[in-house]
Amino acid sequence: MSKQLPKRSEDYSLWYNELVKRAGLAENSAVRGCMVIKPYGYAIWEKMQRTLDDMFKRTGHQNAYFPLFVPKSLFEAEEKNAEGFAKECAVVTHYRLQTDPDNAGKLRVDPNAKLEEELVVRPTSEAIIWSTYKGWIQSYRDLPLLINQWANVVRWEMRTRLFLRTAEFLWQEGHTAHATDAEALAETRQMLDVYAEFAEEHLALPVVKGVKTENERFAGAVETYCIEGLMQDGKALQAGTSHFLGQNFAKAFDVKFQTKDGGLEHVWGTSWGVSTRLMGALVMAHSDDEGLVLPPKLAPIQVVIVPIYKTGQLDELLERIRPIQMGLIARGISVKVDDRDTERPGFKFAEWELKGVPVRLAVGARDLDSGTVEVARRDTKEKMNLPLADIVNSIDQLLQDIQQNIYRKALRFREEHTTRVESYEEFKQVLDGKGGFVLAHYDGTSETEERIKEETKATIRCLALAEPAEEGVCIVTGKPSTRRAHFARAY
Amino acid sequence: MSKQLPKRSEDYSLWYNELVKRAGLAENSAVRGCMVIKPYGYAIWEKMQRTLDDMFKRTGHQNAYFPLFVPKSLFEAEEKNAEGFAKECAVVTHYRLQTDPDNAGKLRVDPNAKLEEELVVRPTSEAIIWSTYKGWIQSYRDLPLLINQWANVVRWEMRTRLFLRTAEFLWQEGHTAHATDAEALAETRQMLDVYAEFAEEHLALPVVKGVKTENERFAGAVETYCIEGLMQDGKALQAGTSHFLGQNFAKAFDVKFQTKDGGLEHVWGTSWGVSTRLMGALVMAHSDDEGLVLPPKLAPIQVVIVPIYKTGQLDELLERIRPIQMGLIARGISVKVDDRDTERPGFKFAEWELKGVPVRLAVGARDLDSGTVEVARRDTKEKMNLPLADIVNSIDQLLQDIQQNIYRKALRFREEHTTRVESYEEFKQVLDGKGGFVLAHYDGTSETEERIKEETKATIRCLALAEPAEEGVCIVTGKPSTRRAHFARAY
Ligand SMILES: [Zn+2]
Ligand SMILES: [Zn+2]
Repeated sequence: MSKQLPKRSEDYSLWYNELVKRAGLAENSAVRGCMVIKPYGYAIWEKMQRTLDDMFKRTGHQNAYFPLFVPKSLFEAEEKNAEGFAKECAVVTHYRLQTDPDNAGKLRVDPNAKLEEELVVRPTSEAIIWSTYKGWIQSYRDLPLLINQWANVVRWEMRTRLFLRTAEFLWQEGHTAHATDAEALAETRQMLDVYAEFAEEHLALPVVKGVKTENERFAGAVETYCIEGLMQDGKALQAGTSHFLGQNFAKAFDVKFQTKDGGLEHVWGTSWGVSTRLMGALVMAHSDDEGLVLPPKLAPIQVVIVPIYKTGQLDELLERIRPIQMGLIARGISVKVDDRDTERPGFKFAEWELKGVPVRLAVGARDLDSGTVEVARRDTKEKMNLPLADIVNSIDQLLQDIQQNIYRKALRFREEHTTRVESYEEFKQVLDGKGGFVLAHYDGTSETEERIKEETKATIRCLALAEPAEEGVCIVTGKPSTRRAHFARAY
Repeated sequence: MSKQLPKRSEDYSLWYNELVKRAGLAENSAVRGCMVIKPYGYAIWEKMQRTLDDMFKRTGHQNAYFPLFVPKSLFEAEEKNAEGFAKECAVVTHYRLQTDPDNAGKLRVDPNAKLEEELVVRPTSEAIIWSTYKGWIQSYRDLPLLINQWANVVRWEMRTRLFLRTAEFLWQEGHTAHATDAEALAETRQMLDVYAEFAEEHLALPVVKGVKTENERFAGAVETYCIEGLMQDGKALQAGTSHFLGQNFAKAFDVKFQTKDGGLEHVWGTSWGVSTRLMGALVMAHSDDEGLVLPPKLAPIQVVIVPIYKTGQLDELLERIRPIQMGLIARGISVKVDDRDTERPGFKFAEWELKGVPVRLAVGARDLDSGTVEVARRDTKEKMNLPLADIVNSIDQLLQDIQQNIYRKALRFREEHTTRVESYEEFKQVLDGKGGFVLAHYDGTSETEERIKEETKATIRCLALAEPAEEGVCIVTGKPSTRRAHFARAY
């Protein structure tokens, strides 16, 4: 904890990487582009998983597990999907190693153990899942089929960053099948809403809900919906996607069902996912130059108690602290008493600040005698003395306030960094200035979108669902436009 | 549900496979040796995971996540471990596919995207984890390091069976590091006890705790402890292992720590795991010719309510059933009301029997009028009429009775199938007769163990911890022996 973090204002990217490592969230591994998720980081991910999983189950979904590997012939069945992922997939070609005759103590791939058909390590599971669904779906009575999977996936990204873009990452992927396009579309939108609710109420991250343009659409989808958040450096981050697949995968894998009136039709599909990328969003959206700022709902430790004592008086003080600890635990609040006798309070304060614990109590014998406790909140760094008598209620309320305050702060930031522009000049000025979302008219063509991307590095994050129709002209070509798009530079 | 299951007595192996598929636990996939875990099967696995995870956390462990891939050079660092797994590992050699110029619409491995160093898909994670621990451990203050991971692993088995032996399976693997051999050994034994407690109290499976002989030891371990259960066909099944690794991996990966008095020493390690194999044990230990028999603690649905009604009266009856349902839910019991108007009660009874739901209520208007409910328990197939007034307490108690009864039945079976023999003749007779554990003296050599295995297909499941020292002579060579080993044919 001795070294200071780099400052956000000086090197945002370095600040992020150092913070992720020093706070104990993740680190790079010996495998190119793959990360190790460390216990503290994994504990946050587990909280995300548990919350999302409950939301999925409440909306009628069940979990299942499908193979890690996709045989090449299945992988290539849905052509656009295959094309989209072929360039970045890990391929298993052999199933055995043998002693290397030229290198004592070393192994080499056994040339006699070559697979007849190569296996792709799943970059996403539509192919393997839809080939399974063919066996599960015969009749309208088998529909809707509402399945989710928690899994690891691999995409061979060339430039990787902890959590934001890694060769292997953890995620959940929902894959559903429906009798009608309307039902499938409703599911797509429902899961978008679930993601938005999770982002706003748990991550404390306000998001824009929208639909992707064709350029940014998931390979194999008819329509891709997404939620987009804004990070403190003014760049956008896609935090979740929900795809309406139409009948694309049903046709590629020949999944048909008997309708109520005896017909035979292809089913309609959706898929939707969020990943450990959310960990990156969490860090980038809220944290500061002292370390993480965790929303209480996702903090593995919500309250840390640091005893303030003279040498030799720790045990006695810990005895007096126990009722506070127990009271908080009984309220369902996770508490850590930092009882290390080897570190000084200042060191402990800095460490728990770095780790983003929302509330810190500093408790000395004298405070207890006078019936008060010193309480510090991580988000605003305010300190206050609260009466011991009502401490559990006070802390409970404080945690709720912090959750809301972190959200409101992020929302205010987004509002201040959402700009409507009327010219390409202004567009570039805002992007190079304060950044954030830039709402502009464009002519709706991929060409214009591409040109803007090449010239400014800004992409269309989405056509926001809440954005009203509005007559206008494209900032680049001057052609007519009927709505503004959300542009931004993005992670 | 129309087709009968094969009978255990006629073809145990076919019975198992059919039951796993028809009950909706798992099925084979398009990938050789890999299974799809279906929603009902996955729901049971989730209950196992949740229970074990809580037990791990209560014993001080934290979860983390390490890469799926192991670079070949790390994989081969611990020589025995590498040797043990080299013959059955999936190897990634390329990171891209490209359009196949000879086959329109098909893909092929891009020869220009060959990895400089091959990546092994983890068959177990000691190598990647110990190479990480080198960065995490410097001082005695960093110890003990108590980490667990939930993950998928791949072992290229040639002959596979759903849950019992699959190329990919799900598991947890604990990996801990300690300052002393005594501490590491205590951890190894503690986790063995955790597994035994889980097996007996949740799976309702009595297990023998013991230590493996050198022949059966985990590749790279100094000592392998295990729990062994007995299946209904008289074969043993290893349900979990806990390895004392000594300093083997610390030496292979150069993981040293500064001791309290300033020395520098290699750390001591353990690893321990259970897998989706437990699902196979669960099925094989308790189920019958009508289907699954699930211990209530692991049953996704503990109580099913089947309404008995005349056409047109379902809704009215469901209204009257709701208070029973709500009462059970309020007690923390998971309940399913089978309100399908398209199936007859007999069909529903058979289906829930197949799926092993511990308690079934058949509820008609007349029963409700008379203040009773017909209750059937899955394990004994007993039916009884219970007073409606006290139904929640009765069911709660009944679920506890069923859990205990399933365990007691399995224990009785094991006791009846544990035989002490004094000659090789008798040994073979028991194996070919009733099967089960055969406790025999042997001379402690690998040669004799190998010979017995070749001649009888029985292996030493373990040297049971509870087995007392006893003078005797080897049943094969007549040489002196000081304790009996647990022999059995095994999965
Ligand atoms: Zn969007
Ligand atoms: Zn054993």
